Amino acid sequence: MAAANAYYSLAELAERFGLQARGIARIHGVATLSRAGQGELAFLANPLYRKELAGSSAAAVILREEDAALAPCPVLVARDPYVAFARIAALFEPATESTRGIHASAVIDPSAQIADTASIGPLCQIGPHVRIESGAVLGPGCIVGAGCTVGEGSVLVARVTLVTSVCLGKRVRIHPGAVLGADGFGLAMEAGQWIKVPQLGGVVVGDDCEIGANTCIDRGALDDTRLGEDVRIDNLVQIGHNVQIGAHTAVAGCAAIAGSARIGRYCLIGGGVGIVGHLSICDKVILTARSLVTHSIDQPGQYSSGVPLQESRRWRRNAARFRQLDELARRVLKDARNNNNDKDPSSS
Amino acid sequence: MAAANAYYSLAELAERFGLQARGIARIHGVATLSRAGQGELAFLANPLYRKELAGSSAAAVILREEDAALAPCPVLVARDPYVAFARIAALFEPATESTRGIHASAVIDPSAQIADTASIGPLCQIGPHVRIESGAVLGPGCIVGAGCTVGEGSVLVARVTLVTSVCLGKRVRIHPGAVLGADGFGLAMEAGQWIKVPQLGGVVVGDDCEIGANTCIDRGALDDTRLGEDVRIDNLVQIGHNVQIGAHTAVAGCAAIAGSARIGRYCLIGGGVGIVGHLSICDKVILTARSLVTHSIDQPGQYSSGVPLQESRRWRRNAARFRQLDELARRVLKDARNNNNDKDPSSS
Amino acid sequence: MAAANAYYSLAELAERFGLQARGIARIHGVATLSRAGQGELAFLANPLYRKELAGSSAAAVILREEDAALAPCPVLVARDPYVAFARIAALFEPATESTRGIHASAVIDPSAQIADTASIGPLCQIGPHVRIESGAVLGPGCIVGAGCTVGEGSVLVARVTLVTSVCLGKRVRIHPGAVLGADGFGLAMEAGQWIKVPQLGGVVVGDDCEIGANTCIDRGALDDTRLGEDVRIDNLVQIGHNVQIGAHTAVAGCAAIAGSARIGRYCLIGGGVGIVGHLSICDKVILTARSLVTHSIDQPGQYSSGVPLQESRRWRRNAARFRQLDELARRVLKDARNNNNDKDPSSS
Repeated sequence: MAAANAYYSLAELAERFGLQARGIARIHGVATLSRAGQGELAFLANPLYRKELAGSSAAAVILREEDAALAPCPVLVARDPYVAFARIAALFEPATESTRGIHASAVIDPSAQIADTASIGPLCQIGPHVRIESGAVLGPGCIVGAGCTVGEGSVLVARVTLVTSVCLGKRVRIHPGAVLGADGFGLAMEAGQWIKVPQLGGVVVGDDCEIGANTCIDRGALDDTRLGEDVRIDNLVQIGHNVQIGAHTAVAGCAAIAGSARIGRYCLIGGGVGIVGHLSICDKVILTARSLVTHSIDQPGQYSSGVPLQESRRWRRNAARFRQLDELARRVLKDARNNNNDKDPSSS
Repeated sequence: MAAANAYYSLAELAERFGLQARGIARIHGVATLSRAGQGELAFLANPLYRKELAGSSAAAVILREEDAALAPCPVLVARDPYVAFARIAALFEPATESTRGIHASAVIDPSAQIADTASIGPLCQIGPHVRIESGAVLGPGCIVGAGCTVGEGSVLVARVTLVTSVCLGKRVRIHPGAVLGADGFGLAMEAGQWIKVPQLGGVVVGDDCEIGANTCIDRGALDDTRLGEDVRIDNLVQIGHNVQIGAHTAVAGCAAIAGSARIGRYCLIGGGVGIVGHLSICDKVILTARSLVTHSIDQPGQYSSGVPLQESRRWRRNAARFRQLDELARRVLKDARNNNNDKDPSSS
Repeated sequence: MAAANAYYSLAELAERFGLQARGIARIHGVATLSRAGQGELAFLANPLYRKELAGSSAAAVILREEDAALAPCPVLVARDPYVAFARIAALFEPATESTRGIHASAVIDPSAQIADTASIGPLCQIGPHVRIESGAVLGPGCIVGAGCTVGEGSVLVARVTLVTSVCLGKRVRIHPGAVLGADGFGLAMEAGQWIKVPQLGGVVVGDDCEIGANTCIDRGALDDTRLGEDVRIDNLVQIGHNVQIGAHTAVAGCAAIAGSARIGRYCLIGGGVGIVGHLSICDKVILTARSLVTHSIDQPGQYSSGVPLQESRRWRRNAARFRQLDELARRVLKDARNNNNDKDPSSS
């Protein structure tokens, strides 16, 4: 694991991040409980890993008060060890080297406005009327099409494509292969042929958003597709035209949100979740992995769909019965009615 | 929203597109019902948005006869308002600026044949024996490998990869990040090691197809992978080797079609649908979002799979019972037999 | 189909690959049963295609002993016809033309070490402290970021991105659009804002792995994300940070494996399968298409989830009943108890 040259005492870290230090250690890097060695700080947040604590060779561990007694080494006690770890690990991140200015191999339209403090990497292509604001960094191979804006301090890691009419806020981070501003999937059938419905809107991405590798966010058909501030999108996610996602919502890998869906603030959309178009999901909704949402949700809470994994031999028998579930239910309810002792649960 | 300088009277639009105009308006752009203002034309096709009609500030609205009375403004009456809107919106699409000829930064194999009227953008790479036909446009960063053909008037928006042996028809449009002609997933196990099965076929794409961002269409193993004319594919779709898709079929985002599947004409494949390999789906089949197809379908119609979303707490109890569904069904049917009044629904 | 100029007699092929030849033929290419013509060798492995054997115009067919009598032409009898076909087809693969050395348009950091026998294609970008070993081939448009290694004989077909800290073994093959080494999706919530958890690990890919188009493999958070040798990954697959995949496991298209999951050796992960994070799957597990794994699996075998496809009209009634499945089960079991003749199957 990469580590800078800096050393920090446990006491310094405790003071800096509002934690409580017990014991003395000098820290020069971070690692997992099972791998950490001399001078390395580990953390215990997920209870799954509690069993690794006693045997850890870490110089110190960040953990909750209730786990402190189990640690074989000095500790930093934190209310939220994962947050504390994130803060401290950032001290040891190697600085990324980006050179101010425009690489000689980049191809820049003369009408583009590029801030002096921005960095445009090798083999980038910047189209007409683009604006790249101060401190923005474009890694190698990025394409920024006509009329796009990359806000202050935003980073396109490498090979990002902003097709057209994309406006990124400040400190947005986009990973390789992501495509923002491609045409939405707008089709109308006429006389047995598809007609392409013109896609004329843009994509607006709020401050502090992060967008994963090979994720697609289509431009709006008429209005814009919009992400609020601090929205976090993982890899290979599809976001259709005119979708709106509220601030601080996180979307895990391979999720797909169809056109014109509106997602609230502080939602957690699990991996592989599907959301059909033209519906609304209110704030603070959690969708577990691979759920499919076909109706609007207007109550915060956690929602799921799907059936559990089984050995294929047993699963096949159960799955076959699903085809007769309505018929079976009718029999059960008829028996119940005949026994005169109950009512249809579907009416409850 | 972008708009050209042109103005059209409602009467002109009606005549041009075979619609019926009621009232007088001058139109210089298009917008949604809720956002349209002075000089902007909106449309009402999806009944979900009917409630926005009365309050719209649009200069005019395209709608069906039955909605006309509700409009607070002049209207264009259309049998299919979405088609009419698509046609009219195209008038207001900003012209895309592509310069004929080959950008100085592009890298072109000397054996490639490029029509004079074609446009090859910055940082493209064109391999040996490629043919780029008249009027074709390659945006920035496209890669066209050995032996590929880009047909007349086709557009690779940006950063498209045609790996090898890909033949695009006329007026095909491909969005950024799409990869056509990569090796299919052909493996054989021998003595505990995988052997790669050579992938020797190509990809043939019919006229007027559209292919979305980051979509993959693999080359055939021996024969070609084939899309008929006017096939429309959304983003992040996977199409395996030797798949055949009939003309006018549309495939929504994140769908996956495994190797050697044959899909008919005029099918609608919903978002996230999965289709296993080596099966056939006849013409005019509709698959709703996230359905999984494991057997051939020989009757047109609409098909689905999956279970509905519920609050996780309730869902968990139902999902747990799925594991015993066969056992439960046996009990219900046994009771029925004991009561001598019914037969197994699986035999019906 | 592409074919080299070489001819082979059936007897030569039999000797070379340990097969049994019956009859005489001269072979100069390979094709499918239905398409093969003069001089072309076909194969019959999947019983689905047995019906095409009698009518085939192939010069010869590779098949199993039990199918030999049905062939209308000379045959090569093989224990595993697909393996034999893979071996023989490789003879007819056109040689890929890659020129040793570094293309003039590539942008190479001076600190990168590139073997003399390696090939760096047009418009590649190679960052600091990269090592490209002997015989490695980078097709056009590849990006190899700081500190990455591309092992001996590995091939990045085109437009592959290795972001940072990626180490590829020998003979690894990666298809276009794949992104290895992007940041994992590590977030912690503090005071209503997401904090990015630094991603400091790398990606280690064993010898002989193959990675499909537009697939993403994230770098580890602290430790590395690891693929054992001979792991085969299809297109559009998501592999989260710190995932470990054992040797010889194959992962089909659109599968998604969440962070810190550990997958065994010789597993077959079907298309679209989802695996949630922080769990273990033992060796030799088969997961059928679109299964979702939410718990660890410690027994080899085949597993599935999902419900079968039906006509939407019938499916809707069955799916609606799923919402009351627990309630229905309780009634059935209560009746059973009242009849005093059975026990709850959930306790079995």
